[in-house]
Amino acid sequence: MIPEEVLSVLEDMRSERIRGATHLAKRGAEAYLLLAGNLRGEELRKALREMRNLLPAVNPSMASLYNLSRFIPLTDDPKVVRERVEEFLSLLETSIIEIGNIGSELVDDGDTVITHSFSSAVLSILRRAMEKGRQFRVVLTESAPDYEGIALARELEKLGVGFEVITDAQLGLFARKATLALVGADTVTRDGAVVNKAGTYPLALACHDAGVPFYVAAESFKFHPEKSSDGMELLERPYSRQGYRVRNILFDVTPWKFIRGIITELGIIVPPKEL
Amino acid sequence: MIPEEVLSVLEDMRSERIRGATHLAKRGAEAYLLLAGNLRGEELRKALREMRNLLPAVNPSMASLYNLSRFIPLTDDPKVVRERVEEFLSLLETSIIEIGNIGSELVDDGDTVITHSFSSAVLSILRRAMEKGRQFRVVLTESAPDYEGIALARELEKLGVGFEVITDAQLGLFARKATLALVGADTVTRDGAVVNKAGTYPLALACHDAGVPFYVAAESFKFHPEKSSDGMELLERPYSRQGYRVRNILFDVTPWKFIRGIITELGIIVPPKEL
Repeated sequence: MIPEEVLSVLEDMRSERIRGATHLAKRGAEAYLLLAGNLRGEELRKALREMRNLLPAVNPSMASLYNLSRFIPLTDDPKVVRERVEEFLSLLETSIIEIGNIGSELVDDGDTVITHSFSSAVLSILRRAMEKGRQFRVVLTESAPDYEGIALARELEKLGVGFEVITDAQLGLFARKATLALVGADTVTRDGAVVNKAGTYPLALACHDAGVPFYVAAESFKFHPEKSSDGMELLERPYSRQGYRVRNILFDVTPWKFIRGIITELGIIVPPKEL
Repeated sequence: MIPEEVLSVLEDMRSERIRGATHLAKRGAEAYLLLAGNLRGEELRKALREMRNLLPAVNPSMASLYNLSRFIPLTDDPKVVRERVEEFLSLLETSIIEIGNIGSELVDDGDTVITHSFSSAVLSILRRAMEKGRQFRVVLTESAPDYEGIALARELEKLGVGFEVITDAQLGLFARKATLALVGADTVTRDGAVVNKAGTYPLALACHDAGVPFYVAAESFKFHPEKSSDGMELLERPYSRQGYRVRNILFDVTPWKFIRGIITELGIIVPPKEL
């Protein structure tokens, strides 16, 4: 049996499903620490086996939850669970730094980098590029209706990176003026498609049409080993504007053929992958 | 010399440059009626010649102003000007009705029609399709930051057309679920590109990628006989969001190759045109 307090973390996570992959992975790690604090022996092993269904079920389309549930071994020993959770959390941190190291090599002097929404991995790349003294500017979408773009603008301001905020509808216009596109990912499917904030796919199309290299920054734990692009469940959170219900599917799916490469902590993954 | 009150209409028009092509064409027609009321003989002829520069200069990228200035002959006779203005205004009205007649033939039972922003020509097509008893629904973007989509939603509600409002960033997602795309135009360039509300170009790209036929509805007076797509001046009206300046170029340019056809009052114009 899964202890009540662990089930309650999973319940919280379900209501937070709209949050990013990294946030939910950290919450999942918490759930495992609670489990290790409450159970041991055969009970622990059975609970860990159950978690392999329960944790991914929070959001079946989010690779980070699936991968975390496989990262923790089926063991009798709470100490092993705790150590492995620490390893996972430290992987989250080091991955994003290494993505910054690798990805910043793509940023050249004079570049105009276009991005969409907010990605910690993209921010890590831009931060590292600044540290390396690269001269570049950023074009970013405001990313309605939650305006994550404004949060990114604040971070870029702190870093001293020059930027322009655009409306989401202008991404086609500004893609043509960019020299590099960098976006994050919530999940990378086994056929290489990128699930990310809605608007990513049209940005990729516009970059493809304009010949602008389009890169995705994603830690390797965001790669889903089983799900393919046609089986993705895309979360929605409708809202109201002037009395009308507005559809708000949070993610779209960008096929591999529009992606120049996926920047991971292991290196840049390039085609073919879908073959 | 151009009378003061005519210059004042032109001045007003410059401050209204963000308004649609049809609105500005009607204001231009007003300017000509004032001219005909004030001048005659050689003075009138000279003023009409001057207007061929002054009127297009209000917005050099807007075909309707250019075409109106050529539609009015260089004459000594105010009556000729008035008659021709009436002819132009009646052309505006009959064109939009005829576009409705022609375009509605593209709407089939079961269609999901996707559109972006607000176009009177598209509304005319949808209205006529309803009158013909076609069963279809509409997906429309809210079209930030001015939310013209909400104005369209209101019109569709009156007509009894089923619709869904989406954010601009979801146009890639919903293009894949649509069976027909219909948008308006401010100007069609001589190389067949369509200048319309920013967001039209990524919608066209997404429709192209998904194999959804993408049609533009535009009266023939929106065809610019001289301007080509690389010479378009695109108006901008920046605004502020949470203390940050947001770029807001109002129009983007969709190349001919992504357009299945342009629905005019004369018929549907299909490729090749750019050759």
